[in-house]
Amino acid sequence: MNTLILSSSDTREIVRRVGLDAVMDRMIDALYTTLSTLVTEKTVVPLRSGFHYHDPMPGLIEWMPIMENGSRATIKVVGYHPENPDAYGIPTILGTVSSYDVKTGHLIGLADGTFLTALRTGAASGVATRIMASKNARIVGLIGCGAQAVAQLHAVSRVMDVREVLYYDIDADTVQSFPSRSNILGLDRTSFNATGLNDLIQNSDVICSATSVDVGAGPVFDDTETKPWLHINAAGSDFEGKYEIPKTLLKRSVVIPDVLQQAVSQGECQQLDGEHIGPELIDVIRNAEEHEGLRERLTVFDSTGWALEDHVALDLFMEYAGEFGLGSHIEIESVSHDAKNPYEFVFNGVADQNRPDAA
Amino acid sequence: MNTLILSSSDTREIVRRVGLDAVMDRMIDALYTTLSTLVTEKTVVPLRSGFHYHDPMPGLIEWMPIMENGSRATIKVVGYHPENPDAYGIPTILGTVSSYDVKTGHLIGLADGTFLTALRTGAASGVATRIMASKNARIVGLIGCGAQAVAQLHAVSRVMDVREVLYYDIDADTVQSFPSRSNILGLDRTSFNATGLNDLIQNSDVICSATSVDVGAGPVFDDTETKPWLHINAAGSDFEGKYEIPKTLLKRSVVIPDVLQQAVSQGECQQLDGEHIGPELIDVIRNAEEHEGLRERLTVFDSTGWALEDHVALDLFMEYAGEFGLGSHIEIESVSHDAKNPYEFVFNGVADQNRPDAA
Repeated sequence: MNTLILSSSDTREIVRRVGLDAVMDRMIDALYTTLSTLVTEKTVVPLRSGFHYHDPMPGLIEWMPIMENGSRATIKVVGYHPENPDAYGIPTILGTVSSYDVKTGHLIGLADGTFLTALRTGAASGVATRIMASKNARIVGLIGCGAQAVAQLHAVSRVMDVREVLYYDIDADTVQSFPSRSNILGLDRTSFNATGLNDLIQNSDVICSATSVDVGAGPVFDDTETKPWLHINAAGSDFEGKYEIPKTLLKRSVVIPDVLQQAVSQGECQQLDGEHIGPELIDVIRNAEEHEGLRERLTVFDSTGWALEDHVALDLFMEYAGEFGLGSHIEIESVSHDAKNPYEFVFNGVADQNRPDAA
Repeated sequence: MNTLILSSSDTREIVRRVGLDAVMDRMIDALYTTLSTLVTEKTVVPLRSGFHYHDPMPGLIEWMPIMENGSRATIKVVGYHPENPDAYGIPTILGTVSSYDVKTGHLIGLADGTFLTALRTGAASGVATRIMASKNARIVGLIGCGAQAVAQLHAVSRVMDVREVLYYDIDADTVQSFPSRSNILGLDRTSFNATGLNDLIQNSDVICSATSVDVGAGPVFDDTETKPWLHINAAGSDFEGKYEIPKTLLKRSVVIPDVLQQAVSQGECQQLDGEHIGPELIDVIRNAEEHEGLRERLTVFDSTGWALEDHVALDLFMEYAGEFGLGSHIEIESVSHDAKNPYEFVFNGVADQNRPDAA
């Protein structure tokens, strides 16, 4: 019983072979299809849990489990350590995702969760934008130009015809370097405009917000007039006390959480009473005609990050790995031929007299 | 940043090189030392959680996390699927254990959790027996001769001078095959005696109980007279409603839980009020002189299984792997040189014009 281990080189090779745009398109489609067809009664998603600490560095390690009953369980273990870039030259978010066979408990596969997290968080905004943005949307605004922004812009650019990118970050260096980070997306460089927050909010058709605002320090912009059809992907809030969008703007909007139960404790929905919270993303997708009117309205996708997204992303990469013959197949779990003797595997094929410490 | 993956072959090779007895001795010592010196304020052990289901097979997948603040976190993911042996010829318990760097979130290592679970559950009974059994204990009784029994007997045989092994199982085949499963331990074959339950309980100095009794079906034996110094390792209860030891016997005993909070919901302590529960194992170890009198008394180690034991076991095997140069070093997490761009790793070293889907 082997476990398929995808190295970061395997992940890289998959994206190079398939192409970045095709991977994102496929991920958006896969997530949309999964949401359309998911048997919610058979899908168990416990609230994520984790270790939060301030010593020696501020950080957290969280596990995000999900199970499709009768099929597979996925657990992402993800670290968030804001000092990583300065202290060690590595990303703030480091993670891995594992897949388990629900019939036997066997670990089927393990892969990178860092790129996959960016990809799936982007794809969730892609799905939301596809179903809630105006069909004439052309101008994207980015609030926060850090690690999540490239994937947010990428996903949105795959579901709408982006003609202009307005971008803002509290850090001048991050603003200055953003266009070069986005080179990879193949968008027209002349369409990029660094702007002030107010201009960005007033002129955008779609906004992606993904900042690292501190707990209790939000919102990250003042409420102001917007286009009536503005769609916001609020991808930054994922903590108790962390949020980005002004409460008054939320109250004027239809707020669509990814997972209601999580959004009310860690998302923008923390700021709202139940009566001001709209349907979940899955409901909007399943009742598309009924919700078609959302395209003309002010909408906020409250994206707190969902284990289902990791589940779909890992499946996609395991599938690609199979297709291309990539990854290492390693037997990790010890399997004794005698199920009643966990020691037996040690001496499989070794005669008793060769038992090392009996010599 | 590589992850050290120990294959089952690596685990096997470690045990062959070190020797089974030496591995168990080292594991018992390591667990004892860790319990003696652990800074409990810096050690966070959330209650284990998991998926329980009955479709398509009855089973559960649980995650057991533990963190030593400032150092490492360990998460064991373990499956329990009683149909595995008959349906697939694989063990009921399948698991893997992962180690994370608390400073960065990096996955340091991943190894088998199946053999390690047997080893560490055995070692916990070894530690308890070492500090609570009579110094003259010579007769071991085993209630349940399934997958945990060999490791239980092994551990106990390393901390007391075993002259006689009494064993009982509800299943006649399991009784019949037990001595051959125990061959590996190098004990005198003539010392093994299959007995009835009553004889076993009345004549043993130390008992290890590890059955798969159903929820609500316990206890697994009737209360009867015992030697006044009998020590019981109750290793089987790990579920709500599952327990093995008669309540009246527990009430006459000093009951020592591994983890109080877990034992009251999943262990023998479910049957007891707080006033009938003794100190935790860690307290007995730290106040050894005060508790020396336990050797002359009826004692029950309520062993529900502790993430700390997995943490110590994984560390031990990672250390052995380092010593012997075993294991595969694989970079799994994708690391972009630009911490603000999770896409950058895909095209590390590839010029823009070579980007596949921009061609």
